[in-house]
Amino acid sequence: MDHSTSLLRLIFLALGAALVLLVLRSAFHLPRGIDTPTTSLFDAAAAAGSSCTRFAPWGCRKGDRTKPKPKPPSHETDVPRHPLDPLTVSEINRAREILRAHPPFASSPSSLFVHSLALDEPEKAVVLGWRRGVDPLPPRRAVAVVRFRGEAFVLAVDLAGGAVTPLPVPASGYPTMTMDEQVSLCFAPFADPAFNATIRRRGVRLSDVACLPISLGWYGPTEENRRLIKVQCFSAEGTANFYMRPIEGLTVLVDMDTAEVIHISDRGAGIPIPAAANTDYRYARHMQEEGDPASNGFQKVRAPSMEPAPSGPGVELVDGHTVRWGGWELHLKADARAGMVVSRARVQDPRTGAHREVLYKGMASELFVPYMDPSEAWYFKTYMDAGEYGFGLQAMPLVPLNDCPRHARYLDGVFVAADGRPYVRENMICVFERYAGDVAWRHSESPITGMDIRESRPKVTLVARMVASVANYDYIMDWEFQMDGLIRIKVGLSGILMVKGTAYSHLNQARDNEDMHGTLLSENVIGVIHDHFVTFRLDMDVDGANNSFVRVDMARQETSPGESPRRSYLKATRRVARTEKEAQVRLKLYEPAEFHVVNPTKKTRVGNPVGYKVVPAGTAATLLDPEDPPQKRGAFTNNQIWVTPYNKTEEWAGGLFVYQSKGEDTLASWADRFVSLYLLDFYSIQLMDYYCI
Amino acid sequence: MDHSTSLLRLIFLALGAALVLLVLRSAFHLPRGIDTPTTSLFDAAAAAGSSCTRFAPWGCRKGDRTKPKPKPPSHETDVPRHPLDPLTVSEINRAREILRAHPPFASSPSSLFVHSLALDEPEKAVVLGWRRGVDPLPPRRAVAVVRFRGEAFVLAVDLAGGAVTPLPVPASGYPTMTMDEQVSLCFAPFADPAFNATIRRRGVRLSDVACLPISLGWYGPTEENRRLIKVQCFSAEGTANFYMRPIEGLTVLVDMDTAEVIHISDRGAGIPIPAAANTDYRYARHMQEEGDPASNGFQKVRAPSMEPAPSGPGVELVDGHTVRWGGWELHLKADARAGMVVSRARVQDPRTGAHREVLYKGMASELFVPYMDPSEAWYFKTYMDAGEYGFGLQAMPLVPLNDCPRHARYLDGVFVAADGRPYVRENMICVFERYAGDVAWRHSESPITGMDIRESRPKVTLVARMVASVANYDYIMDWEFQMDGLIRIKVGLSGILMVKGTAYSHLNQARDNEDMHGTLLSENVIGVIHDHFVTFRLDMDVDGANNSFVRVDMARQETSPGESPRRSYLKATRRVARTEKEAQVRLKLYEPAEFHVVNPTKKTRVGNPVGYKVVPAGTAATLLDPEDPPQKRGAFTNNQIWVTPYNKTEEWAGGLFVYQSKGEDTLASWADRFVSLYLLDFYSIQLMDYYCI
Repeated sequence: MDHSTSLLRLIFLALGAALVLLVLRSAFHLPRGIDTPTTSLFDAAAAAGSSCTRFAPWGCRKGDRTKPKPKPPSHETDVPRHPLDPLTVSEINRAREILRAHPPFASSPSSLFVHSLALDEPEKAVVLGWRRGVDPLPPRRAVAVVRFRGEAFVLAVDLAGGAVTPLPVPASGYPTMTMDEQVSLCFAPFADPAFNATIRRRGVRLSDVACLPISLGWYGPTEENRRLIKVQCFSAEGTANFYMRPIEGLTVLVDMDTAEVIHISDRGAGIPIPAAANTDYRYARHMQEEGDPASNGFQKVRAPSMEPAPSGPGVELVDGHTVRWGGWELHLKADARAGMVVSRARVQDPRTGAHREVLYKGMASELFVPYMDPSEAWYFKTYMDAGEYGFGLQAMPLVPLNDCPRHARYLDGVFVAADGRPYVRENMICVFERYAGDVAWRHSESPITGMDIRESRPKVTLVARMVASVANYDYIMDWEFQMDGLIRIKVGLSGILMVKGTAYSHLNQARDNEDMHGTLLSENVIGVIHDHFVTFRLDMDVDGANNSFVRVDMARQETSPGESPRRSYLKATRRVARTEKEAQVRLKLYEPAEFHVVNPTKKTRVGNPVGYKVVPAGTAATLLDPEDPPQKRGAFTNNQIWVTPYNKTEEWAGGLFVYQSKGEDTLASWADRFVSLYLLDFYSIQLMDYYCI
Repeated sequence: MDHSTSLLRLIFLALGAALVLLVLRSAFHLPRGIDTPTTSLFDAAAAAGSSCTRFAPWGCRKGDRTKPKPKPPSHETDVPRHPLDPLTVSEINRAREILRAHPPFASSPSSLFVHSLALDEPEKAVVLGWRRGVDPLPPRRAVAVVRFRGEAFVLAVDLAGGAVTPLPVPASGYPTMTMDEQVSLCFAPFADPAFNATIRRRGVRLSDVACLPISLGWYGPTEENRRLIKVQCFSAEGTANFYMRPIEGLTVLVDMDTAEVIHISDRGAGIPIPAAANTDYRYARHMQEEGDPASNGFQKVRAPSMEPAPSGPGVELVDGHTVRWGGWELHLKADARAGMVVSRARVQDPRTGAHREVLYKGMASELFVPYMDPSEAWYFKTYMDAGEYGFGLQAMPLVPLNDCPRHARYLDGVFVAADGRPYVRENMICVFERYAGDVAWRHSESPITGMDIRESRPKVTLVARMVASVANYDYIMDWEFQMDGLIRIKVGLSGILMVKGTAYSHLNQARDNEDMHGTLLSENVIGVIHDHFVTFRLDMDVDGANNSFVRVDMARQETSPGESPRRSYLKATRRVARTEKEAQVRLKLYEPAEFHVVNPTKKTRVGNPVGYKVVPAGTAATLLDPEDPPQKRGAFTNNQIWVTPYNKTEEWAGGLFVYQSKGEDTLASWADRFVSLYLLDFYSIQLMDYYCI
């Protein structure tokens, strides 16, 4: 009964929480000296003697590089070795050639803008049937999202044959911005004399201005039929931390295709730009300017070294993308939109030696970050970081030893520029064996029994990490795999706050009970209340694709008179969700439930279905009006868990084209069907905590 | 403005969650091979060849020791060096002499049973005023809970002068059991021929029987006016894991004072005792009997070594109980009831160098573990592990390298036996610097800005850990201190399930929708649904004792017509709790709130009160009927947070005398006063998650 005993284990262990999202909030509020209890970001005292280094103007900011860059590893000769391997440099070049030769693009290839170009993953059955080292790779196809003369196309590209097949284009919304757009549109306002005059009126030199492209959501017909963006600007004078120096109230509406300034809104004339003093967070800068940073609140933190155990399992990286560790095997890759994709996570059955399916594909599907200030310069800040900016596009190279421990292995990302050319993002993902000094399992017998038993096993896990720096915020995304079969997803928020300028320099200037939409953090600086919702798509295939979603409700059961000295107990009731509607979960503390993904066709030795428990953690709920435009677009946050049948095209909870979308194509609309649930494609809306200063 | 800038930091950082309880549930369901995805506790297949080692009978179980014990450090010569240091060996001996000489105990000192004897901590003002190396220690006093000829006394003992002062005795309930009672009462049933006959009828040799003392709660007048206990027995034949072999349905009611068997309930005649095969979890046993344990699902996990950084902060242990690390200074001690007590946790202000108060005292106050089966042999299982069993009394020596990493420092506990003599529990607490490969703070600039910034600081923390093995369960209690000022409390559940015997060996034998009160885990074994609620008492003194409790409610605010393109936003409203009633918190996901402990007399530079944010995590709610006897006793779980004014005697959320208490003296009764809240004694009911198989 080898089979059933280990099946039992899966559900048995799943108790420990199968997929857990923890809100780490590593400390996203203290850019400087965060790892010491000593320093404040807004620290006037130490400022006096510092000679604020002037920054080059925006366009020249690249001149600020001080460290030589290590030569990136060459990916020119990469070849795919697994059906799920991402497109290689040469495959991207091949796809580019095909697209540029494809009519009507061939008429003007320079008018073709590539918004995304990625592997079109083969059908699940094909991937499951493929045997490493035995079978040839299935045909390689790409899926491209391009724009040509103002029109968007979604195209399947057969890399071998060169065929280009059009796929459906969403009715509303636009593709994810290209990095080229995000960079270039920041310069657009400078071409407008009115903008320059405004900046000068605010007392800022044009050469000190740094701007950010802010996606503007969707607020009605006036914003339709053209791609728009709002540009917000800061003074970078005297600090690398320009985020702390908003030119408040100034919003420039720009046409993304023509770079034309459509409208300038300036409601901030009376609001001073917060001071630069003590906002710079760079360790080296403090070393240079103020001597020993430790004396200025920087604690020299050196991490203890995590040395691998001589006989530990060790992390094995096969063919560049397949990770093997401690019984786990999984495929890992960078993705321009999702950031990091975990595929085919399988865990070894010790009896048979076979790898048993757990998760076919897991990834961040969308982020929704609404700010809670309805005023002119802030109401539209309701970001969807994956679909608007590209969560992977914003992932920077990790810092060895500080972002990941010694002995970590690194994976690069290969992405595509707007002109269709490939580029390499080095060290974008790290994989390492973690030992945090914790206990995996232990038991001591107490003196009650008199047995001298002290058993304890250290907890060693596998971590795959990437960090996306979406402008000011840094999202640290960890997938952690335990030897007992548990998978834990952690999201850490770090980086810098997006703050609002204010005329107030002390709380006593505010009216009683004034709604500042946040907290006065420093002179002229308000931290604005906002949420971070992170949605994960989990395609669970527990022991195969035939999975069901089970809700185990726990409720008070009163006993009958005379039945027991107890009046009540907690009774669990299992219900298999029959439709998508039944699988929509809104969590309630006093109506608790557990959520299992089970394979009803596979039973344990004693007859229970094999399964995993899904544990939402760090949960929060959206409080916005469901009819508020941002909430319609972010309607996938209306529930904490959704379950939809497998559909390869329904990967993005906010829809394929999120930019300026109206919310017509979200998980919330798909899941309103009354489709029978048997073969599962599991969407888990894992909500991060409120952020309120 | 040094003062205010770092004050700002406190509230600023508090965002990151000041005091967080995370439910780790390290994996309390897989005693064997838990750190491998390979083995099941109930694993029939591998059993065939194993020659089950017979165990010596219960009383001789100590003969089973195989490893030589390291010689314990001598504490004979310990002297107290800090006002909060626990009683030393010689102080305990001195207190014992005083008590035994005290009338009326002097007439028959052997009839005096010591249930607890611990430091009577000096008044807060005295402790705060004491200067190390300058002032002499304040007078040392002990507080003793004793029983003499059936009567309980609470006594203050002046160790220098020898004066004994009676303190109030609770109206109901009995003191925490002594370890001597817990051990000896297991033998009581064997003196009863009817019990022995019952055991033989169940086919178990008396020499194989192992029993546990089960606190019986309180269920009405029939159980009053004498100390009672219920004894439940198991077969230890063929396994150290007797927990898996319940002699189901057999409950023996015993008088704790006379050891007399009052009643034997046997409703389990038809229920077989589950098999021993494959239940033993000991690594060495598998090594002996089955060769390489790895071949049997035991993975040889060796933890990577966490080597301290050459220039890292390092853990300093001063005078045995004061821990200094990374700006933190705190006092740490073992406690027979609470397990581990953290006192005077202070964090260094980098500007002034002074240590600023954060937490005067923090500890687990009570645990409540109600099982959810109303039947005769289970309804009473509603444990209060601290007040009934002694959470510290059940803490066993930690296993170096497996329970705590290399380089951990260890603290012993000095406790008191029923006869008043001291004994040492070695290596009961460990303290270590943790590096888990995580990031404390980081920021990269994305290509949007073109600035080549990649700042990242590794996260290094201090962990203080103890583990209580309350019979089958092992609670791993961590207090973690971060350099940014955050304190995190983690509870991990490990060990072995308390299971119920059943006639079923397969689920297909059960009726449709039959309420089994749990899940069939293996042949004849049900895991019974239960909760674990862990309550912490936190006496926060943020920058001094004058603290207030602030509730920040977040709610939807609709905009006025024409005010904004947004229809709604989230508005935060701060309310200072005026009474204990106002500070009672029942968490709701869709009515979210934050909870701050602030010092209204200390303001940040811009005018915000200095404070800490308290973040309940891993929360759950009790679903029992409030009028159910166990819930009346566990009424301190009715809310997730309570706040009461400082009262040194209100330390135990379930009352001083929990055993057989009726729930008249719990946090729920104290907090129903309408007392003004200004000087805070903060009770946080941190609820652990539901446990339902």
